[in-house]
Amino acid sequence: MNTWLDIPRNSDFSVHNLPYGIFSTSSRRPRVGVAIGDQIIDLAALAIRRYFQNLSIEPEVLEQSSLNAFIRLGKPTWQAVRKRLTSWLTQTDSPLYHLRKECFVAQSEAKMHLPLEIGDYTDFYASEAHATNVGTMFRGKENALMPNWKHMPIAYHGRASSIVVSGTNIHRPKGQIILKSADQPVFSPTQALDFELEMAAVIGKENKLGTSVRPEKAEDYIFGFVLFNDWSARDIQRWEYVPLGPFLGKNFASSISPWVVPLEALQPFRVDGPEQQPKPLPYLQTSDRQNFDINLEVAIQPEGENDVVVSQTNFKNMYWNIGQMLAHHTVNGCNMRIGDLLASGTISGEESDSYGSLLELSWNGERPLKINSNQPRTYLEDGDTVTLRGYAEQEGIRVGFGEVRTKILPSL
Amino acid sequence: MNTWLDIPRNSDFSVHNLPYGIFSTSSRRPRVGVAIGDQIIDLAALAIRRYFQNLSIEPEVLEQSSLNAFIRLGKPTWQAVRKRLTSWLTQTDSPLYHLRKECFVAQSEAKMHLPLEIGDYTDFYASEAHATNVGTMFRGKENALMPNWKHMPIAYHGRASSIVVSGTNIHRPKGQIILKSADQPVFSPTQALDFELEMAAVIGKENKLGTSVRPEKAEDYIFGFVLFNDWSARDIQRWEYVPLGPFLGKNFASSISPWVVPLEALQPFRVDGPEQQPKPLPYLQTSDRQNFDINLEVAIQPEGENDVVVSQTNFKNMYWNIGQMLAHHTVNGCNMRIGDLLASGTISGEESDSYGSLLELSWNGERPLKINSNQPRTYLEDGDTVTLRGYAEQEGIRVGFGEVRTKILPSL
Repeated sequence: MNTWLDIPRNSDFSVHNLPYGIFSTSSRRPRVGVAIGDQIIDLAALAIRRYFQNLSIEPEVLEQSSLNAFIRLGKPTWQAVRKRLTSWLTQTDSPLYHLRKECFVAQSEAKMHLPLEIGDYTDFYASEAHATNVGTMFRGKENALMPNWKHMPIAYHGRASSIVVSGTNIHRPKGQIILKSADQPVFSPTQALDFELEMAAVIGKENKLGTSVRPEKAEDYIFGFVLFNDWSARDIQRWEYVPLGPFLGKNFASSISPWVVPLEALQPFRVDGPEQQPKPLPYLQTSDRQNFDINLEVAIQPEGENDVVVSQTNFKNMYWNIGQMLAHHTVNGCNMRIGDLLASGTISGEESDSYGSLLELSWNGERPLKINSNQPRTYLEDGDTVTLRGYAEQEGIRVGFGEVRTKILPSL
Repeated sequence: MNTWLDIPRNSDFSVHNLPYGIFSTSSRRPRVGVAIGDQIIDLAALAIRRYFQNLSIEPEVLEQSSLNAFIRLGKPTWQAVRKRLTSWLTQTDSPLYHLRKECFVAQSEAKMHLPLEIGDYTDFYASEAHATNVGTMFRGKENALMPNWKHMPIAYHGRASSIVVSGTNIHRPKGQIILKSADQPVFSPTQALDFELEMAAVIGKENKLGTSVRPEKAEDYIFGFVLFNDWSARDIQRWEYVPLGPFLGKNFASSISPWVVPLEALQPFRVDGPEQQPKPLPYLQTSDRQNFDINLEVAIQPEGENDVVVSQTNFKNMYWNIGQMLAHHTVNGCNMRIGDLLASGTISGEESDSYGSLLELSWNGERPLKINSNQPRTYLEDGDTVTLRGYAEQEGIRVGFGEVRTKILPSL
């Protein structure tokens, strides 16, 4: 597909992508936009000019500070808008071409906002390599993968209030930790601040309390995906997590990328997942090509130095797929609401340079990383900027997620 | 305090209480009301008549389907409204007296709604007797109370979307369970459906991400309390909960009472909590009288039979108090939002008839309960109605929570 718009080579935001986000400019409050190249299509500006009227999209829906109202219009509407934008971007005889002065905003001049009102956020634990690595370090090799792990996509509830958008700096959290060779806790800034490289699905359709979603229907319930950084304080987590799971070791912040890539844009990148043995119970059985081939990487930039890629992996490595996650989550009747996030859990590959967390990359401190001129390190330092990036690419089609970038500030 | 209103003897909703809720009638949509005796004061009807204008409360704030907008006005406003209602209820020369036809609705004619938009719900584990009982059953006597338990109020994140109001029936959830003497899971309706008797604090003031709340400031951050039933499917929970904590064993539903009792109404019932040994870290240290003397009970009513009280306990038994819960939750910078719930965890006493769950009351099935004509039972059966009730009483002052009542329906 060719567009009349000048799109930078290798842009994440090709005409095949068309991700949604919430942006504002110095003169205009937050609204719905679609990223294309280094520009944003101002959907609200188009709606005010009645270009979405025959799709029954009221301008107010696009003049919101979250995507929730737009998502609520439903899949046929998302599809119609996508089709219309694709058509307009590929034809010069289109309103978008004629209104390109009024309806485009340079990304460099826009501020991006958290794109969703997130009611509930669930974090899965669906990468076998990650679960095995962490289990080995926390509980020893024999208890690494618990007996339940291959029977269901294990998950826990995360904190929705502290999810922030890329560009939001976070302060090193404080909490109870057990210092080496001590048995009583002390109160301290975490000494083991870590990232977790994840993807998160955005729920686009609600199921009523008491009802379940079959895995093959997941397509109807998922609006799109974002990059997700599930910040973790390993020392706080380790001391608190038995028996009820992670809490303060996680809930100080999670960061997401500003652009929600539609599920529809990811269809060309479907691949088979790993074979599942033992065979899951019937409610978890899915057909083939339920995983997505998305290249992922993490970079760390120490203060005043260069960005260094510390891990490269792929979303296709996940043992449990998103349809299985949604089916499992709702099999007891738990209800999803629009804007809810289902995060994948840390995405690690088999190789030691494809792990999605510093806990794994430094093997719990045993193999410190070298990053530029700094001393060998195991965990994040104040002033570090962590960036997650992701894109899918195939036969000249590139669909990217942009990035989620966060700087670590000292404890308050 | 005497009121001109005829209040039934032993009413939970005395003039000392004045709890807030959301109600509707056949002719009027959901709005904010205050319970008094067997009546509801329609605050929206008073606001439309401009009786709250000099408190800067716009009528729209009271014509909402949740209390969030009202709570957001802040503690001085809650206090002013409370003072005004108290004054009006005790003087016949008052607008409320003159408008008693227009501004009162009989509770019997009102439908109660979920009173809050709940962003995040956290469940603590703050009763020593409960944690010891469950720990003993799940992990054995030696590992009952984990080493962290006396150092911090342990908690996990619950699911906000599935919190429902009293009167909402719930279906028996299905999920993976391990049948006796099996080692592989089967998919089945839960065979171990349980209640958990809890109280939950409603957050009334927000802290910014990255900042913490000192325990002695908790008073400013808590709007009030509700009864909370944290439904649990013990067989699902047991199979799934290691290592990330409870998930599908809990998130199919939680039930709350419709009336939020203001923290101010509970001040006369403050008592000392149990001595804390070891002494908590400084960020968790509180002054005395941080617990509340609130009588609690659970009743089960099998289909077509009488309601039988199966447990009586008291909220004052909690090891960790609400100020400590809030301080711990925010010590890493986690932000609270208005309407968030902090639930106490199951409230159990020391005696075997004061346990707050069937898991404990039946000691994991070893000591089945006898309820009316039914067979001995360990867990809930379809058709059972479970009711939690609570009230504080002292020197003729009674402040009650009403009830949270739920009927168990068969699996869908």
